[in-house]
This record gives sequence, C-alpha cells and structure tokens, in this order.
Amino acid sequence: MENEMEKEENIKERIIRKSWNLFSQKGFEKTTLNDIIMSAGISKGTFYYYFRSKDTLLNTLSVIFDEEYRNVEEQMPADLDSFEKLMYLNYRIHTYIGENFDYRLIANQYAAQLTKEDASNLLDKNRFYFSILNRIIDEGQKNGELRDDLTVTEMVKLYGICERALVTDWCMNNGEYSLGEYSKKMMPLLFGQCRKK
Amino acid sequence: MENEMEKEENIKERIIRKSWNLFSQKGFEKTTLNDIIMSAGISKGTFYYYFRSKDTLLNTLSVIFDEEYRNVEEQMPADLDSFEKLMYLNYRIHTYIGENFDYRLIANQYAAQLTKEDASNLLDKNRFYFSILNRIIDEGQKNGELRDDLTVTEMVKLYGICERALVTDWCMNNGEYSLGEYSKKMMPLLFGQCRKK
Repeated sequence: MENEMEKEENIKERIIRKSWNLFSQKGFEKTTLNDIIMSAGISKGTFYYYFRSKDTLLNTLSVIFDEEYRNVEEQMPADLDSFEKLMYLNYRIHTYIGENFDYRLIANQYAAQLTKEDASNLLDKNRFYFSILNRIIDEGQKNGELRDDLTVTEMVKLYGICERALVTDWCMNNGEYSLGEYSKKMMPLLFGQCRKK
Repeated sequence: MENEMEKEENIKERIIRKSWNLFSQKGFEKTTLNDIIMSAGISKGTFYYYFRSKDTLLNTLSVIFDEEYRNVEEQMPADLDSFEKLMYLNYRIHTYIGENFDYRLIANQYAAQLTKEDASNLLDKNRFYFSILNRIIDEGQKNGELRDDLTVTEMVKLYGICERALVTDWCMNNGEYSLGEYSKKMMPLLFGQCRKK
C-alpha cells in the first residue's frame, strides 16, 4: 500500500514536471496532450486518471516549486544563520525559476491569482513553502537572529510579499535580467529590516 | 490659447475623475456611458472627442493617481526628512487608493500589466510619480539621509516594487484591511534599508 501510494505520487509528479518543462520550452498553447504523455512515458488513460485537462496542470506550479524547496533545503550549508538561510532559499528558488520557466507562464499565473480567475494553489497554507519559512523564522526569533516584534506569521507574509514583488518585477521586465542575481541583491534590502541588529 | 488648453485639460480630467468614481461605486461593467456623461456634465460628442470608448478610460488610472500625488505634495509637512517624505507620500496615496477604489478594479489593472493585455500607463516614465520620487531621493542622497550606494534610479525602482507589493497583497486579500494603515506599518520595513544609518 505504501509502495502503491509512492508510485502514484511519482507518476503524478512526473507528469507535472514534464509538463512544465514542455510549457517552458514550447509554450503552453503549443504543448499538446500528446507531447505530455510521450514525455512522461504514460498512456492517455493514466493522464486522465490524474488530471482533467491540460489546463488543470496550470494549477500545479506550487507542486513544482515545493519540490525544489525540498531539494534546496537538503543542500543548505550548515553554517548559515536564520537570516542567511532565508536569503539562500530565496536565491536558489529564484535562480531555479529564472532558469527554468518562461516569464510569461509565471506572469499569467500571478495575474490569475490577482483576478481570481483560477484557484491557483501557490497561496495554499499547507504548502511546504510555508512550513519551511515558519520553521526558519521561528528558530531565528528564538535564537535572537531575527527581530521578534513581528509575529512569525507576519514575517512569513512579509517574506512572501518581497518574493512576489521581485518575481512580478522580473515578469514586467520580460524576464530580461537574471531573477536569481537580481534577487540576491534586492532581497537583503527588502527583508533586511527583519534581521536583528 | 493658454486658457483653451487649460479648459480642455480640465474637461478631460473631470471625465477621468468622475468615471473612476462611478467605476468604484457601481463597478466598471455596470457603469454606462450615459452615467459618465451625466456625471461629468458633458455631451456624448465631448466624451468621444477625448476618449474612444469606456474601455479606454481604464488606462487613465495613472492620471488620477498623479493628480493625488500633486495634492499630497502640496500638503507635505515641511519638517520631514527625505525618508519620512517618502513614507508620508506612500501612506497618503495608499490611504487614497484604499478609500476610493474597489480592489477588483486595481487588481484587474495590475494583472493586465503583468500579462501585457493593455498598455497601462502606470509605468510611463514621464509620470509625475517618477519625477517626485526622483527629486526626493536625489535630495536625500545628497544631504546624507538616504544611502548612496544605490543609484537614484535603482532606489526609485525599489520604492515602486515595495508599493506594488503592498497593493498587490491588499488586492489578493480582497481589500479586507486598510491599505493605508497596513502600508504605514510595512513600508518602513520594506524600504527601511535605504535610510542611511
């Protein structure tokens, strides 16, 4: 049973990952269902077992991002303080986004969130993203590395606001510069007041 | 001739101002062209002299905002330093937006910018918004109140990123809290690193 669930999870995640690769390479419109099932090595039936349509896949960006957050956490250097951990996380994820996603895809997802045209799950409070941020910030407040006159929730929200601002700006500049390098410079400026002096 | 131009400007601005009042009160869809010409006290012909359609008016948000920036500048207390001036400006404008605009209208404009569905002029470099920010930041760097290891342009951009982040977040929370009061708390956190220590 354990194995069955694990296998299911793997197939679903593989479909998601392969699809986003295709969306970035060929564009969302030009990616066909056939491209997706070929690339994931599955049947049409298997695809429809997990997803209603190609459009449904647009709501899975958070799955992809969270997978990367888990990777990055494993690779996190041990000697960083809490503030540095947050900056490292941001730098790695924004580098990942900048290098692997067409800015138009990201822009469309963010715009859809704003106008509530879809039920994007980037804001789902159960995301790994929120759990890792909560953990690092809570730790940082307890050991005196982050200011503690804001609640953990407020600081997580502020961190999210900063990231969203940087990604949005990158999109509005047509992805012309490196999202990772720009964030490396700007994120400590935007979030720096949260570090305890 | 001077008077003619002034008069034209006034009519155009009145149409814009009255229209946005109506959009916020009744919603954009439910506002008719008739509502607009009645409210502005003009004929249909006069409306079409200035605007192609009701839709065209959506691109005039920057005109409204800049009008308010001019008002706020006139009311700016004389004893503020450059950083405080920037915070005052932000607080006043965000209070104005929060109190006068339906969050859905703002969300749609910001989303449209992201997906380039329209040529919104909020980012037009000739806006009064950019000129007043440039002026205050340049002054602040020269008299040592703001850090000078970023260019004026970089700092104006950062200020814009922060404001956009706060407005976006307010929209995503369905305008549930006061944009002005939230910004009063958050803007000094987000932009605080630009103050010279």
